Amino acid sequence: MMKHKEIALNKLRGMGDEVLESVLQEEVPSIQIPSRGTSNIIYNPDKKYFELGDRKGTRSLGNVKQIKKMAQMMCVGNFCKELVDIQKTATMREMYYVSEGWDVGFDNQQESNNITEDIEVTLGVSRENLGLLPEEDGASVYGDITLRDEDVEFNALRLGKSGYTIPPTVDDVEIVDADVDRIICVETMGLYHRMVQEKAYERFNALIVGLKGQAARATRRFIRRTSDELNVPVYICNDGDPWGFHIAMVIISGSAKLAHVNHDLATPNAKFLGVTASDIINYDLPTDKLKDIDVTRLKELSGDPRYQTDFWQTEIKKMLKLGRKAEQQSFSKYGLEYIIDTYFPNKISAIEGQSLE
Amino acid sequence: MMKHKEIALNKLRGMGDEVLESVLQEEVPSIQIPSRGTSNIIYNPDKKYFELGDRKGTRSLGNVKQIKKMAQMMCVGNFCKELVDIQKTATMREMYYVSEGWDVGFDNQQESNNITEDIEVTLGVSRENLGLLPEEDGASVYGDITLRDEDVEFNALRLGKSGYTIPPTVDDVEIVDADVDRIICVETMGLYHRMVQEKAYERFNALIVGLKGQAARATRRFIRRTSDELNVPVYICNDGDPWGFHIAMVIISGSAKLAHVNHDLATPNAKFLGVTASDIINYDLPTDKLKDIDVTRLKELSGDPRYQTDFWQTEIKKMLKLGRKAEQQSFSKYGLEYIIDTYFPNKISAIEGQSLE
Repeated sequence: MMKHKEIALNKLRGMGDEVLESVLQEEVPSIQIPSRGTSNIIYNPDKKYFELGDRKGTRSLGNVKQIKKMAQMMCVGNFCKELVDIQKTATMREMYYVSEGWDVGFDNQQESNNITEDIEVTLGVSRENLGLLPEEDGASVYGDITLRDEDVEFNALRLGKSGYTIPPTVDDVEIVDADVDRIICVETMGLYHRMVQEKAYERFNALIVGLKGQAARATRRFIRRTSDELNVPVYICNDGDPWGFHIAMVIISGSAKLAHVNHDLATPNAKFLGVTASDIINYDLPTDKLKDIDVTRLKELSGDPRYQTDFWQTEIKKMLKLGRKAEQQSFSKYGLEYIIDTYFPNKISAIEGQSLE
Repeated sequence: MMKHKEIALNKLRGMGDEVLESVLQEEVPSIQIPSRGTSNIIYNPDKKYFELGDRKGTRSLGNVKQIKKMAQMMCVGNFCKELVDIQKTATMREMYYVSEGWDVGFDNQQESNNITEDIEVTLGVSRENLGLLPEEDGASVYGDITLRDEDVEFNALRLGKSGYTIPPTVDDVEIVDADVDRIICVETMGLYHRMVQEKAYERFNALIVGLKGQAARATRRFIRRTSDELNVPVYICNDGDPWGFHIAMVIISGSAKLAHVNHDLATPNAKFLGVTASDIINYDLPTDKLKDIDVTRLKELSGDPRYQTDFWQTEIKKMLKLGRKAEQQSFSKYGLEYIIDTYFPNKISAIEGQSLE
């Protein structure tokens, strides 16, 4: 069994043992659950991501209102223990239906999601490692990386034009080997296929990651793991609008909602290398006018703790003043290859302080 | 060059030659474009899909209002010819930006999409074969199929847990070999991963396709090609609600909007094997109440030419009477493996008239 599964199993057993112990000692069983309330979600400027503070709540069988929730936690914990034990996984949806057979079921999916999050927070283990998977797959990956999943080993240059798809079970995947100098993530699959077609993975000796918009949890975990294990810079290259900025920021600094798992999902070393207001001016890009909703969002970001750097404050002000936004694909104005032949080399050279020839 | 590319190239050249010829003969150049109006979209009950009728419109340089559109068609045609010639592709979005450098540009993306569709219809060639790709990738595929894309050959059992992702350039992919008796498509990635985890590809000797909801064009083309080239039955296994029904129907009989390419995308031999109102009753499944929008949609489907079979008419009536719908994952009520151990074998045996042991 892989180490992260063993840890999960031990923690699940620990939770059950604690309750059992109390019963045997004729005490009222209770569990301490870190609070996920807004006031307990704190941005840590050193770590560069949101994490949970020290506040905890107590869930006790001595409180009539909490009995059902305690029982549900035990049922979910037990279900997860079995899953991890037999090396299986289930979707949150499947568990919801399975729970129809339990003595304490759920009234709706939201209720079972909440209990699952309670366990994640209490044990400090992500639900993926408890065997509970989100529905969606992660990003596409193309480049010279060799991975192993159970008994199958493969290189992401040899899986077809769409490359490797990151599975929800990303922590079961072993990084065997990689020959890359950097990781370049792009927002759209259109640009991803452009990068593959123009062999950008060779030109930049890079792993190309196609995010498919907002990055899935599996994608964020994969980026974090490759960043840690390969020890190469990670660039997030998105559209030049508040939505593109924030897709990058969630990869870099995590979200407030997932403060309890950001230590596994955030990649604080990753750098935004997407389209900026400065790029729009310098490259005379085709643009669209900022909509009201873009302006509102930019102003929100400007007050967000994750954007309190000179770079972001300057770029957000500049975009608001310019009143325009631009997509990455707009570089096609200068030809399909321009973004790879000229723009990316310029940007990467500037940030790495070395020429990319 | 692959054959479908050669055909596309010849047809593009033909379109240009025709216009040139007229000019040289001092005639007014014009192009006949099959009409895509509703009255020219006809359901063909023998072929079991929508196709275009015989009505055509004429676009002529002699008509002041049509000059710009004619010129745009020539520019897009020329752009596609270059793409196919140098074996590249571009997204519709990229072409839109590239067109900024043309003498006749587009006012918006919709305008360039329309001109592209004009060319598709006129030449009878899908835009993918003209080098113009949709942004999105297709479905995930797991099972014993060996494919080749350019110089890379791979088997879809050896690409990691998420399997093979169908690229937008699906017609460039060669099916080298396959050892499967049937193709089973499922609507959700949750069920796809369940099928992979329970080794349903071995149990049913099947290719498992994870549709990710409404099937992308690349997915529909892949299903059609595997159906034709492997000559095995195709089953579409979706949720038991009007949306699940229709995801299956679009794979089987195509959409009205794409009447001009259904001959390449539809798989009329494919069979719906998703959750029916009868299943809901027979398996006593957990259900949700039909919403108003579900009822409206079911009534629409009941009048749709594609649903005029006894099977569909009966099942739609039964669901309306029952007033309930059910997801495929609801079989988890009987345990995670039930759907693969019991439900699918029952359904497949019934349709194939042989036991699946």
